[in-house]
Amino acid sequence: MRIPLNELESHMGETLVLQGFVEKIRDLQYVEFLILRDETGKVQITLEKEEKNQELISLASKITEESTILVEGTLVENQKVKLRGMEFIPTRIEITSYAPLELPIDIKKKEASLRETRLDYRLLDLRREENNLLFRAQTLILHAMREYWYEHGFIEINSPKICANAAESGAEVFKLDYFGQKACLSQSPQFYKQMAMASNFGKVFEIGPAFRAENSHTSYHATEIQMVDAEISWITSCEDVMDMEEDWLRFVFSELKEKLGEEIQEKFGVEITDAKQKFPRIPLKDAKKILKEQYHYEGDRKDDLERHEEELLCQYAKEKYGSDFVFVTKWPFSSRPFYHMKDQEGYSDSYDLLYKGLEITTGAQREHRADVLKEQIIEKGLHPDDFDFYIDFFRYGCPPHGGFGFGLARLMMQIFEIDNIREATFVYRGPTRLNP
Amino acid sequence: MRIPLNELESHMGETLVLQGFVEKIRDLQYVEFLILRDETGKVQITLEKEEKNQELISLASKITEESTILVEGTLVENQKVKLRGMEFIPTRIEITSYAPLELPIDIKKKEASLRETRLDYRLLDLRREENNLLFRAQTLILHAMREYWYEHGFIEINSPKICANAAESGAEVFKLDYFGQKACLSQSPQFYKQMAMASNFGKVFEIGPAFRAENSHTSYHATEIQMVDAEISWITSCEDVMDMEEDWLRFVFSELKEKLGEEIQEKFGVEITDAKQKFPRIPLKDAKKILKEQYHYEGDRKDDLERHEEELLCQYAKEKYGSDFVFVTKWPFSSRPFYHMKDQEGYSDSYDLLYKGLEITTGAQREHRADVLKEQIIEKGLHPDDFDFYIDFFRYGCPPHGGFGFGLARLMMQIFEIDNIREATFVYRGPTRLNP
Repeated sequence: MRIPLNELESHMGETLVLQGFVEKIRDLQYVEFLILRDETGKVQITLEKEEKNQELISLASKITEESTILVEGTLVENQKVKLRGMEFIPTRIEITSYAPLELPIDIKKKEASLRETRLDYRLLDLRREENNLLFRAQTLILHAMREYWYEHGFIEINSPKICANAAESGAEVFKLDYFGQKACLSQSPQFYKQMAMASNFGKVFEIGPAFRAENSHTSYHATEIQMVDAEISWITSCEDVMDMEEDWLRFVFSELKEKLGEEIQEKFGVEITDAKQKFPRIPLKDAKKILKEQYHYEGDRKDDLERHEEELLCQYAKEKYGSDFVFVTKWPFSSRPFYHMKDQEGYSDSYDLLYKGLEITTGAQREHRADVLKEQIIEKGLHPDDFDFYIDFFRYGCPPHGGFGFGLARLMMQIFEIDNIREATFVYRGPTRLNP
Repeated sequence: MRIPLNELESHMGETLVLQGFVEKIRDLQYVEFLILRDETGKVQITLEKEEKNQELISLASKITEESTILVEGTLVENQKVKLRGMEFIPTRIEITSYAPLELPIDIKKKEASLRETRLDYRLLDLRREENNLLFRAQTLILHAMREYWYEHGFIEINSPKICANAAESGAEVFKLDYFGQKACLSQSPQFYKQMAMASNFGKVFEIGPAFRAENSHTSYHATEIQMVDAEISWITSCEDVMDMEEDWLRFVFSELKEKLGEEIQEKFGVEITDAKQKFPRIPLKDAKKILKEQYHYEGDRKDDLERHEEELLCQYAKEKYGSDFVFVTKWPFSSRPFYHMKDQEGYSDSYDLLYKGLEITTGAQREHRADVLKEQIIEKGLHPDDFDFYIDFFRYGCPPHGGFGFGLARLMMQIFEIDNIREATFVYRGPTRLNP
């Protein structure tokens, strides 16, 4: 079996089989150098142009950059070789696949191709080293998220994506014919994670796709996203949800910083926070006051935050509390969805979490009493009949509960300071992009 | 904050807040007992009918079974109480939600309700203890699967579920209108995990939904399933894929056995294997010979295995090798999809993995050379133009690679010996079931 290239140090002097892409070919008078690359690292292959290598030399002449090869030979130390002070002396080469002489995009220089062209050839765009790091980091982040929940007794659910009823938000839904019935694609697992609460699952999480048929062409809209959702039972206010989210994010960020912080600093120029500082919790009203008094800024809306207010508030949290995160609490019910619980003062018992100047998640205690829920639907000018299937979840006893949800790509964009969701998604879907 | 009921032992004598469903009410002349249940355990609440408890008694009279309450009080030892030798003496009770006097299904007796009624009220059906265990076990299984892959350097991908092109199989697809374009729901991440190979991701996995518009009403068909997929680069035959899958399953089963084996034995009467024995690998031709010589059984088809042959072969593997698993290798290309690689003898370089008498996964080395792939498409009587987008993945250099995929619910059914996929899915979708 092949040896991954990052493990070569422990095989010095051995006869090995290596495989990889040929990243670079340098064909000189007396010697040919190939740089071999796999997903873990690189090594130089040195092919002396000697009589005994006649066959190998002739074969090597057919290799193009980005073709893949399997190569047998011996790994030797050579301090003159800049790349890791080692080289691989081949005795057999097999070309396992061919790349054309010219690729449709330049995988070494991102700027050399238009974004849309890079997206057309996403398989090549993903070969770029930053992208490899980005998706390794995403893998780590997802694993840390689940690790935390698993260790804290959460149950993982996979809620259905084909549904009879549109979910809570006003966003457009994709419709489909389901054996003669009308159906639509799920915009959020919100209703089903609440159902799991009524099923005595206690605490649940789901990481899965959600679909939005919005004809939006901004840098942060997509028609298909990965949602990260959690919901917990037996809470007494959304403070319990914030406690969980804060502790959870602290774990996720400390894992990320510890394991990939340096590499991210190097390739993205971004410093990863360890999220150690307590996240301040500021009621919206107080936040508005701080913005006015300390930054002389007043947003247009009293019941919501504009982007610039979010930025200033994050600046404040960083300066005053040393935190990259800040919770904004106590929202007017008018600016929140019908299913949020009202607190004793009539506020929505919910919060937004801001990170680096942007709202990344919304969390809340949910209204779990069928009769109150119905009243709130009416208060919002909606029709209870349209939500009958949902209200049903709360007719047979249901724990007080709350949770949060957010789009994964949005978090990735904020962490890595990527300005377009298309760059932070494995294979992007938008109104004019259905390929590859 | 509330104390989970499985942690009570360490809070003896303390004043606590508990929350839970009221599982059982026993109202006697001088005392009322409530059994409180959360997702972690149960405890008895003892309410003496004394003068000082007047208010509590009057409140308790409004509680119905399966309502939820929050209760403050003191936890005391009492060896006379059968349930854990403890009881909780309440000083305050708050009814947090009401259940009606009669529930639409009996959550203590599964057999008391028809399956379809139970599915109508899935939120109640899931309160049953076996179901709680089933989904806790599924959570553990999924976590162990990802843990193994994470520790072995796999990248997690989330491939798009809305696609321009139907995937490989002949199965019917759900169609939808995508801003005026024709689109369909993904039947499998097959093509995209192969794309990730061409992107030098090395090793990938995905656990996510897949959709099949088949109008089938059997006990093992669903229109929406969770697929578990893995793919690895730089292999030399499907033996490498089998090595990975075997090692991976050994880890998953040993975790399951260690952490939940006893509880599963108790509630499902099923013994979990630790999968320690090496899985035998038997070429299809030899398997047929064994069945004929040792079991005097010949199936109708030479190029495939019937259900009964799978059962006999598993019996053989158990008796001869002590293994609950058996790989069947070297399949005729005629019975396998076009994208499997052919070995030197012209066989499909692929395998089926059988477990407890049923095929649970199919794996293969894939054909990664665009020109050969095209020939195989033609050989299968298909049109290369229809697969242009897929063949494109292999035009720019691509590692030799292979992998496997399977439906999660099918595995769960086999492990727990559940006879219907509807019982092994959080919220089931079939041609006549779009609710809840």
